[in-house]
Amino acid sequence: MKQELKLGVIGAGYWGPNLVRNINEAPGADIVAVADLDQERLNALHKRFPAVRTTTDHRELLNDPAIDAVCIVTPISTHRPLAEEALAAGKHVFVEKPLAGTVADAEAIVAAAKRAGKTLMVGHTFVYNPAVTTVRAIIEKGELGKIQYVDSQRVNLGLHQFDFNVLWDLGPHDVSIVLYWLQEEPDWVQCIGACYVQSDIEDVVFLTMGFPSGALAHAHLSWLAPSKLRTMTVIGDKKMAVYDDSSAAEKVKIYDHGVDELSADELRRSYRSGDIRSPRVAVTEALQLEVRHFIDCIRGGNTPRSDGEAGLRVVRALEGANRSLKANGARVQLREPVAR
Amino acid sequence: MKQELKLGVIGAGYWGPNLVRNINEAPGADIVAVADLDQERLNALHKRFPAVRTTTDHRELLNDPAIDAVCIVTPISTHRPLAEEALAAGKHVFVEKPLAGTVADAEAIVAAAKRAGKTLMVGHTFVYNPAVTTVRAIIEKGELGKIQYVDSQRVNLGLHQFDFNVLWDLGPHDVSIVLYWLQEEPDWVQCIGACYVQSDIEDVVFLTMGFPSGALAHAHLSWLAPSKLRTMTVIGDKKMAVYDDSSAAEKVKIYDHGVDELSADELRRSYRSGDIRSPRVAVTEALQLEVRHFIDCIRGGNTPRSDGEAGLRVVRALEGANRSLKANGARVQLREPVAR
Amino acid sequence: MKQELKLGVIGAGYWGPNLVRNINEAPGADIVAVADLDQERLNALHKRFPAVRTTTDHRELLNDPAIDAVCIVTPISTHRPLAEEALAAGKHVFVEKPLAGTVADAEAIVAAAKRAGKTLMVGHTFVYNPAVTTVRAIIEKGELGKIQYVDSQRVNLGLHQFDFNVLWDLGPHDVSIVLYWLQEEPDWVQCIGACYVQSDIEDVVFLTMGFPSGALAHAHLSWLAPSKLRTMTVIGDKKMAVYDDSSAAEKVKIYDHGVDELSADELRRSYRSGDIRSPRVAVTEALQLEVRHFIDCIRGGNTPRSDGEAGLRVVRALEGANRSLKANGARVQLREPVAR
Amino acid sequence: MKQELKLGVIGAGYWGPNLVRNINEAPGADIVAVADLDQERLNALHKRFPAVRTTTDHRELLNDPAIDAVCIVTPISTHRPLAEEALAAGKHVFVEKPLAGTVADAEAIVAAAKRAGKTLMVGHTFVYNPAVTTVRAIIEKGELGKIQYVDSQRVNLGLHQFDFNVLWDLGPHDVSIVLYWLQEEPDWVQCIGACYVQSDIEDVVFLTMGFPSGALAHAHLSWLAPSKLRTMTVIGDKKMAVYDDSSAAEKVKIYDHGVDELSADELRRSYRSGDIRSPRVAVTEALQLEVRHFIDCIRGGNTPRSDGEAGLRVVRALEGANRSLKANGARVQLREPVAR
Repeated sequence: MKQELKLGVIGAGYWGPNLVRNINEAPGADIVAVADLDQERLNALHKRFPAVRTTTDHRELLNDPAIDAVCIVTPISTHRPLAEEALAAGKHVFVEKPLAGTVADAEAIVAAAKRAGKTLMVGHTFVYNPAVTTVRAIIEKGELGKIQYVDSQRVNLGLHQFDFNVLWDLGPHDVSIVLYWLQEEPDWVQCIGACYVQSDIEDVVFLTMGFPSGALAHAHLSWLAPSKLRTMTVIGDKKMAVYDDSSAAEKVKIYDHGVDELSADELRRSYRSGDIRSPRVAVTEALQLEVRHFIDCIRGGNTPRSDGEAGLRVVRALEGANRSLKANGARVQLREPVAR
Repeated sequence: MKQELKLGVIGAGYWGPNLVRNINEAPGADIVAVADLDQERLNALHKRFPAVRTTTDHRELLNDPAIDAVCIVTPISTHRPLAEEALAAGKHVFVEKPLAGTVADAEAIVAAAKRAGKTLMVGHTFVYNPAVTTVRAIIEKGELGKIQYVDSQRVNLGLHQFDFNVLWDLGPHDVSIVLYWLQEEPDWVQCIGACYVQSDIEDVVFLTMGFPSGALAHAHLSWLAPSKLRTMTVIGDKKMAVYDDSSAAEKVKIYDHGVDELSADELRRSYRSGDIRSPRVAVTEALQLEVRHFIDCIRGGNTPRSDGEAGLRVVRALEGANRSLKANGARVQLREPVAR
Repeated sequence: MKQELKLGVIGAGYWGPNLVRNINEAPGADIVAVADLDQERLNALHKRFPAVRTTTDHRELLNDPAIDAVCIVTPISTHRPLAEEALAAGKHVFVEKPLAGTVADAEAIVAAAKRAGKTLMVGHTFVYNPAVTTVRAIIEKGELGKIQYVDSQRVNLGLHQFDFNVLWDLGPHDVSIVLYWLQEEPDWVQCIGACYVQSDIEDVVFLTMGFPSGALAHAHLSWLAPSKLRTMTVIGDKKMAVYDDSSAAEKVKIYDHGVDELSADELRRSYRSGDIRSPRVAVTEALQLEVRHFIDCIRGGNTPRSDGEAGLRVVRALEGANRSLKANGARVQLREPVAR
Repeated sequence: MKQELKLGVIGAGYWGPNLVRNINEAPGADIVAVADLDQERLNALHKRFPAVRTTTDHRELLNDPAIDAVCIVTPISTHRPLAEEALAAGKHVFVEKPLAGTVADAEAIVAAAKRAGKTLMVGHTFVYNPAVTTVRAIIEKGELGKIQYVDSQRVNLGLHQFDFNVLWDLGPHDVSIVLYWLQEEPDWVQCIGACYVQSDIEDVVFLTMGFPSGALAHAHLSWLAPSKLRTMTVIGDKKMAVYDDSSAAEKVKIYDHGVDELSADELRRSYRSGDIRSPRVAVTEALQLEVRHFIDCIRGGNTPRSDGEAGLRVVRALEGANRSLKANGARVQLREPVAR
């Protein structure tokens, strides 16, 4: 295989330039071209990255035989046609999350990648975040014991979207992280929410997922919040972990239960019960690790951590949650409960 | 009316001695007697309060014409018979929260108080908490605008109960606070939960209430948590408030939205959007304020903030939520939705 | 020895009643009498502790043969005469900190105790604080390695004193804690400060102490602060510890250096460098532990952790620091430097 | 004046590339060339900024008539010769902080700039930091009243320097910020410290400065710390401010005293005394603002906020502090005290 992989990016909106910057800094790959329909965005990008070719026609990238892989960072509804076109053109494909807006579209992309025999990776950046992988390693070692439930607070500061609700905007993060941590897919989902700022777009939802192991995962997702929160708590029957992405110094904390040693009176007065340990977490940018993983998977022919199947599982949970949302939070079965 | 009200307390378990201490320190009332079935508890209490008479027979208190009011701090199932007996004996009655374990019992106590023409107050201590009343005052002034939703985290450190679930244990706090803040009663409730430590007693639940105004209230209630949390966030369309009871220095914070002035890029990088103000909150113990309110209401013939009706509303919401819990979180209508 | 020690307290100002309450709750001792010149204070105390005898003449306590020990909780200038009188009367003596306002007075009290053969203990409550003793145990095990320096922030909210400066008000805490942790006495002290609110009484000082081992201890002591701080950082050549008394959940944290493993770039972006561990600290009130220690030392004939010598060492450091303060912070040698 | 200023940078070590990136993104200027003795650094820089010319000979920049200004980001001892050479070549000059390692050198640079009639600016980035300028604006409005003292904690994580001590490494930040806030120069300085890791280089110092107004400023500067701290507290006789650079959400807080309204008992139990307000602070990078200020000053012929005189004042304080450090913290008078 040649020395450097050549990558192109389709989409130069908010997230595209971050991807360009990270490909530019990653060893083993070059960012050679960016396509976007908006010439102004391309101009801005060119000022920052003068060596990168820009075009308003994404087909220029697909037709360029020197380009090995393309990253699709466009509106969700365009993911399927662009991904299918790129795979058909023989490119490896990275699709920004969520993989698609429907299970049908996600399945089609996965099938297209299989047919093409190319690497398909979904941009679930958080599963490459050093704090998230630290928690996964702790779970894998059994340090937390059997996972009972995960509670998440993921609330934002008024960054309202206009074409999809907060479930589709923020939910992919929680769903992808929880599925990665638990290594299982939910049996059912429930989702309650409300539309405050726009009449038909939920800006706050409470999402619950039930897993075959008996674990629950709950997430509060909102665009209406006084401060940005990114906190996930994992309750195991041995220990508990908190991942707080907004903490500069202690992103991950592991809590011993320690309850047995305490009297009821001590418990009432105390704000914690056992020892707490905060392992050091690398400060590397998750997007850089994600880009490197994509490069490594292409080079080594390995399956990405967030491959098409992983992306499809997330879409399946979100689509089910959205159905529950429209049905007043009634439970939506995603598949037959697995007998335990 | 004579100078000092004479009070008796029935129940000397965990909470009773706190009440005794606070009555002892409150102006305008004397604690004169305590009844409990357990002589050891009475002995311990006597060591701390040598001037207080103790007895294993609560009827001694009810039959003592010098006693004006009794406080019932006993297991929930005994609230109704004890309260009815005390009211029939002509005493003013304070009942620890929740008022009762069923709507029927709660209604019976309210009816008994009405018949007796005596003051009935329920021990929803939090509605006397200076931070909670500070938030209420801010809502009342309209500073937050129209309330959109309230989100609460109330999680504990392994203080499992054996005769009722976490909804009945911690839920009375959130329900009483939210109903006090919003000054309305929910139309419907939904509740999802799970039993991890004991097979039939939920130790984690997610409670949602829908109100006539369109507001939602959500609460995460748990006995399985790495650290004690007591945080309630109120989202209004003008401003937002956070009440964090575990903060020593900043129990209440008011957040300006400030979103309009910020670019999307600034919002993404920022952890808040406008000015924040933390009003000073008195450090007076809520239980002391509650006890004084009870004394004042008896003396002045006023209706307590947490009167029987308020206690009944809380029981109604909890009973509905418990039904929803047993029905996989299906929505339980508490009454016909009010036309808006 | 008889079953219960009988204790008396001289001084019913701010701190006296706390001591009375703690003696009352401690096993093995009874609080039997309190003396104060102010009858109103005695009345207030009597309402809370009806079984305790009160008097405006402290000699009533000294002359009562049933009383084994007295606690002196009076203005500093009265410590010496009262302690000498009590020791001469054959009582064990507890003196509130600082032991005295001058080294001469402190030495006189220590000598009087030696002559009387009675237990003398100084109320350096912090050396009984569970977080402080946790840090001491960690130092003792060598976990921090050689101690390099201790930095302390002890600032208050406008509780100005009128008869002594902030060095004498807050300094006894830091000096007693540091001497207990390091188990050595400073060679020299330096102190810089200023008087802002009152013309001749320093309300902010910066105190530095140099120890034979080469360790430094620095403390910022102030009555002029936006929020109460109680933070002490111990830097060792192996690990570091932070004791934050105002943290409800994490009073003690142990930090691994971990610097070796990190690149300079990671260090610049990181807010810590290695693992952090927060050991569980008991929530027992320090004053209760202090009272029990006094009782145990009297009963067992043991030397208290904060005996007269320890109290004298604190006074020696403070007197020297005060001299430095008046000399623009010039170094004051407390004794010949120990050759290392 | 031509459209875009042309800038060159001398020095491509740790900080140089940050400056290059910020000049590249600033409107009104182009970064055209970078000089460094180390070809590898130049190569790394070229990969990121392919349009920028690189050279190992800084005279190429000085001799290029197209270059209007140079930024000197080299070791301190080279500041004077390089700045003098650049000014003599007719360039505007930006010198990284501290301006020089001695007062004599700093004065020579200032004199050279005056002779050349060119803009001289020192890289005291913090005086362009939005949180620092927010605090300055609050002081300027008189909101804090008369400033009594400033206390600073600036401690790092083991980033030891080998050619100068922590006073010269971290001190320029505190001194430049405090002089900017107070708008006065200290009468005297005192500095106590110790060398732990390297035998002759202080890794921890406590710096105190006394000002004509009566204000004190104190700073704890250290390379030996468990976590990075960047906290400055400003005590005024009306209000107090805290600037915590490590807080993502509340970099600046203004505290009302509120002490008058509180009883002594409330003060003892409280962790703050009045209202707290946290104004929104822009999230713009300080270095970007600094670069734009340099460009604006050159274009408009204005004096930079951190001009040569400001840089000289910082060096004067540091040189004096270093003398005090070597004299056991004895007070070093920088000039005759101003009569108040």
